[in-house]
Amino acid sequence: MRIKVGIVGGTGYTGVELLRLLAAHPGVELTAITSRGERGAKVSDLFPNLRGRVDLVFVEPDEAVLGKCDVVFFATPNGTAMNSAPVLLGEGVRIIDLAADFRLRQPQEWEQWYGMPHACPELLAEAVYGLPEVNREAIRHARLVANPGCYPTAVQLGFLPLLEAGLIDRQSLIADAKSGVSGAGRKAEVGILLCEAGDNFKAYNVAAHRHWPEIRQGLTEATGKPVELVFVPHLTPMIRGIHATLYATLTDPKADLQAVFEGRYANEPFVDVMPPKSHPETRSVRGANQCRLAVHQPRNGKTVVVLSVIDNLVKGAAGQAVQNMNLMFGLPETTGLEGIALLP
Amino acid sequence: MRIKVGIVGGTGYTGVELLRLLAAHPGVELTAITSRGERGAKVSDLFPNLRGRVDLVFVEPDEAVLGKCDVVFFATPNGTAMNSAPVLLGEGVRIIDLAADFRLRQPQEWEQWYGMPHACPELLAEAVYGLPEVNREAIRHARLVANPGCYPTAVQLGFLPLLEAGLIDRQSLIADAKSGVSGAGRKAEVGILLCEAGDNFKAYNVAAHRHWPEIRQGLTEATGKPVELVFVPHLTPMIRGIHATLYATLTDPKADLQAVFEGRYANEPFVDVMPPKSHPETRSVRGANQCRLAVHQPRNGKTVVVLSVIDNLVKGAAGQAVQNMNLMFGLPETTGLEGIALLP
Amino acid sequence: MRIKVGIVGGTGYTGVELLRLLAAHPGVELTAITSRGERGAKVSDLFPNLRGRVDLVFVEPDEAVLGKCDVVFFATPNGTAMNSAPVLLGEGVRIIDLAADFRLRQPQEWEQWYGMPHACPELLAEAVYGLPEVNREAIRHARLVANPGCYPTAVQLGFLPLLEAGLIDRQSLIADAKSGVSGAGRKAEVGILLCEAGDNFKAYNVAAHRHWPEIRQGLTEATGKPVELVFVPHLTPMIRGIHATLYATLTDPKADLQAVFEGRYANEPFVDVMPPKSHPETRSVRGANQCRLAVHQPRNGKTVVVLSVIDNLVKGAAGQAVQNMNLMFGLPETTGLEGIALLP
Amino acid sequence: MRIKVGIVGGTGYTGVELLRLLAAHPGVELTAITSRGERGAKVSDLFPNLRGRVDLVFVEPDEAVLGKCDVVFFATPNGTAMNSAPVLLGEGVRIIDLAADFRLRQPQEWEQWYGMPHACPELLAEAVYGLPEVNREAIRHARLVANPGCYPTAVQLGFLPLLEAGLIDRQSLIADAKSGVSGAGRKAEVGILLCEAGDNFKAYNVAAHRHWPEIRQGLTEATGKPVELVFVPHLTPMIRGIHATLYATLTDPKADLQAVFEGRYANEPFVDVMPPKSHPETRSVRGANQCRLAVHQPRNGKTVVVLSVIDNLVKGAAGQAVQNMNLMFGLPETTGLEGIALLP
Repeated sequence: MRIKVGIVGGTGYTGVELLRLLAAHPGVELTAITSRGERGAKVSDLFPNLRGRVDLVFVEPDEAVLGKCDVVFFATPNGTAMNSAPVLLGEGVRIIDLAADFRLRQPQEWEQWYGMPHACPELLAEAVYGLPEVNREAIRHARLVANPGCYPTAVQLGFLPLLEAGLIDRQSLIADAKSGVSGAGRKAEVGILLCEAGDNFKAYNVAAHRHWPEIRQGLTEATGKPVELVFVPHLTPMIRGIHATLYATLTDPKADLQAVFEGRYANEPFVDVMPPKSHPETRSVRGANQCRLAVHQPRNGKTVVVLSVIDNLVKGAAGQAVQNMNLMFGLPETTGLEGIALLP
Repeated sequence: MRIKVGIVGGTGYTGVELLRLLAAHPGVELTAITSRGERGAKVSDLFPNLRGRVDLVFVEPDEAVLGKCDVVFFATPNGTAMNSAPVLLGEGVRIIDLAADFRLRQPQEWEQWYGMPHACPELLAEAVYGLPEVNREAIRHARLVANPGCYPTAVQLGFLPLLEAGLIDRQSLIADAKSGVSGAGRKAEVGILLCEAGDNFKAYNVAAHRHWPEIRQGLTEATGKPVELVFVPHLTPMIRGIHATLYATLTDPKADLQAVFEGRYANEPFVDVMPPKSHPETRSVRGANQCRLAVHQPRNGKTVVVLSVIDNLVKGAAGQAVQNMNLMFGLPETTGLEGIALLP
Repeated sequence: MRIKVGIVGGTGYTGVELLRLLAAHPGVELTAITSRGERGAKVSDLFPNLRGRVDLVFVEPDEAVLGKCDVVFFATPNGTAMNSAPVLLGEGVRIIDLAADFRLRQPQEWEQWYGMPHACPELLAEAVYGLPEVNREAIRHARLVANPGCYPTAVQLGFLPLLEAGLIDRQSLIADAKSGVSGAGRKAEVGILLCEAGDNFKAYNVAAHRHWPEIRQGLTEATGKPVELVFVPHLTPMIRGIHATLYATLTDPKADLQAVFEGRYANEPFVDVMPPKSHPETRSVRGANQCRLAVHQPRNGKTVVVLSVIDNLVKGAAGQAVQNMNLMFGLPETTGLEGIALLP
Repeated sequence: MRIKVGIVGGTGYTGVELLRLLAAHPGVELTAITSRGERGAKVSDLFPNLRGRVDLVFVEPDEAVLGKCDVVFFATPNGTAMNSAPVLLGEGVRIIDLAADFRLRQPQEWEQWYGMPHACPELLAEAVYGLPEVNREAIRHARLVANPGCYPTAVQLGFLPLLEAGLIDRQSLIADAKSGVSGAGRKAEVGILLCEAGDNFKAYNVAAHRHWPEIRQGLTEATGKPVELVFVPHLTPMIRGIHATLYATLTDPKADLQAVFEGRYANEPFVDVMPPKSHPETRSVRGANQCRLAVHQPRNGKTVVVLSVIDNLVKGAAGQAVQNMNLMFGLPETTGLEGIALLP
């Protein structure tokens, strides 16, 4: 029996990536994909890479159709999933939200960062933050999964071993993160035109980025102790990929950091701790549900440097969502996620 | 029983692409991969996208090891496979050469274009030109397959329907082809540095390119009548992809060109004739073993324009080689080649 | 006495390029720059490369302000300049339109291709087509110059020597042209996002492109005899640059084509005929008001291949406009246009 | 009287950029350019952007020729200039070395980082570190200028105002720097191929980079007090540009950082302090001799973030070298350096 899957809002990059992964997933039946703007259009007309593989037509978002699914992915703008979640959950549909609606625990904090009141604050406590490397067991039984943001995935996976082992000062974390342009979505905006973002590099939102509270909350919840960080995102002229360069002050400069990382992720199918002195490249995870990490301690000093790469659309979005679905439905966690990164 | 596969010269882009495809191929056992320069190195150290998926170490090219394989792929520079082919064939190993050693029928022509005498001209008649859309039956029984060049694949698939149907003047074909930089291989050369080939566009080898005789021979053999063409290759600042824009003079401007193309490729799993007025994009086949075609007749005039896209490393090299292997070993032709193009 | 210059619509790529050139032009006083959308904004806030060099603020388009200028450049969408031209000309202001309003001679043809009636068809006969290599003398005395399109500049400069010398069949020209993405302008459109146009190559508008009638008219007028051509534009993943690959059938395959080209452009400051066997690169003209050409005759056959490169924003737009201004105001033609291309 | 200029080793990217700048410099006579490998070749054959602008032919490096110059630029690999400097200085030629030979004060440190003994350690004390914003007066009178590295220029200009004002902890600086690929030079190396460095992002040399001791020495000398820093360089898929993101711990979180930066650089022609909340883009300095800076204090916390961008080939190499030459020969500092950045 295949899992009946619905996708709401499949016209963006996380949507087409979900379709790429789910069309090849042996345990899934793609049941419905919705889009107001593209209603009636063939999915494969919008995304010709899916020609011959996905026959669906975009339909109007409709709870009757979605209500027949076992699980619905929301690949929508922030503020959409929260409007449909209560009804769908009431009909027994499980939900994986790839947007931010259920990522922050406090409704006031959500309102502050996302600029609108939360439509169903009563669900925030139930929602499980879908980082399997932290919340695997809770995800298995979740009705509602908040799929993490792309930066938060890369940053948390890099800091977690150090924080859990108590090896760094929790009050002075720095995350200098660089993202490919697909992280900004498939939107008609001047700033992400090839002629604006190409052959160019810049920081953005240094004062405040919505992933900052998510990272802070995630690291605090995962380790039970408050953390503070400075987070500086940058736009880099490539399509996919996040590279987070993480800095922290070691409380014990003698610790065997490599062993700590290898131990922490020994059984994780999608986190790869590279050998000492490695420099993971974003292309080594292009299209793959992988995070690759390397840990450095320049000149054996007090500062640890962690390098963390993911594909923002896969481990940072659609792939992690499928990983969560596998957990929720009792499938092997790696089902449909075995694709090898495309290099070059 | 899995097919025992050897790869000679796996350190280039066609090599790593073969490994990506074969590592996920359910009917294959990767048995040996050779490289003089990288002997002793782990394959996944050179290509970290294969970490956790390919455990092989590069070994010295050695006929004892290769002789135990069912099939050996040569992903080597031109002029290498011809030196090993007679011995390996003698040991019952089948060969798929991704280089040019067995593509041209006439040894003198080979010598003229590749600058060295052919080492085993007696095999040229036996070698099967591995374009399944033309030579499928012969490939099934071949011991030695000459895998087509990347440009020749894109150009021939575009011209074939028109030539076979007798709809164009065979003496004035024009192929204006644009290739991503991976077509030039993984070589330490200044001309393909990011700072030379990036944000730049140029033609090259307008006077003479080695794929010109291959295309001419292929179209002539496939249709039984001589053709002449002008072939102008260009380098375009992207990694993967070939876009061939083909021009020919129609002998019958009233013919239903769309129907001719759709009919010709109706049963081809890896050739996709797009709807009228389409403009296939190279990214729609990135990483996929697909050729997408569109046929245009501007202002219903005498000139037909065919647009043909492939991924030069997949349908233009490693993917087509696996397709040929599937045919040679009686597997379903699409086995291991179902990957969907990565978009964006 | 400096030329008082106004710019209408300076928020696009031709606008900022005009500003870059004019800010460093010793004979010019930048007097006004208008934009409805950016009224009140500092030009250098929109385009930080101009910080410290251009102090202007965008103002509302206003004929009172513009009327004080000696010349007004329109860097506006098609259909804008034609509404202001009669009034400004009436006030003695000379006009250089970088859009298409005055490029086609026949108002019906304009309406057919641009989808709106022409606002001042009576000016079409007076407008001078601003290709100095053809119309230099007329430009000197023009009140109204229609600055050529980017593709038409590259294509015409490549075909002109052959047509003028009567060396090719005028009825079967083929222009296969590739443009960087800046040719599409600075518009919020999905198709020119980095994630859509990057690492990708495609043809577009094969059925019909607005530059087709312009090229046909230009070549016909320049040579006094009708020409027919097939024109296929492509989008290539770079920012600036056009590479036109031109094909024609020689009527005399023995002609010394190199000499014809060198003779034709011997005195042209901005057309560079490269040595035989050259392959001009778009980056060799990046940022420079240059066209570089090479002529090939593969295998001494009947087909001539011309390679023509320009920077679409310079010789294909803003640079050519300044060249025209220099001619109109009696300055040395190269004033302010001596910048050397940025390579790499 | 024009300055007679020689260039040693003009076949790399700093060489061609020097030629671009000097060919348009009104006070310079390009006298000789040397290259062993390209002896006899026209400079403009190697770099076609210089066609019609530079007529020189590469000559064998020869002290007789160079000895007639007023100044010689070394655009050579590290370890070359130190072999010729004593003789040339003895002949009264002034030297600007764009490589690292004279950047470090201590010969042992040079040997440690560059892997060879220093050929003329006696000159190290005399050599002036060519950062005009620090050493302007000394440069005016220098015989021998050590032109700073690209990363060191961007990093030092960003940290200097804070260090000079005593506003940050000098022992815990972090410089997270991202460079375009041209920083790696024009060398036939696999790692900087378009297919390796394109659509990819990675850190490199995290353990140790040669610019680390240069930055540390430069900041220590400029401020008279020792500093310590962690420096992590990254390769970003673009041609030109460095973006340094700098982190430090404020000793006085109430200080008016914007005023400190604006005051420090008020009279600097090539350092642009952008308004509060700015995010300078590398393309805003592409081709221009500019450093643009912005200073941030996220959430008014204890960490200051400085964003610093330069073109690594201009303010990070050839442009700064010309700036130094202008100072050394009493020309206005901006002569020949007024070019506006190319955007887009």
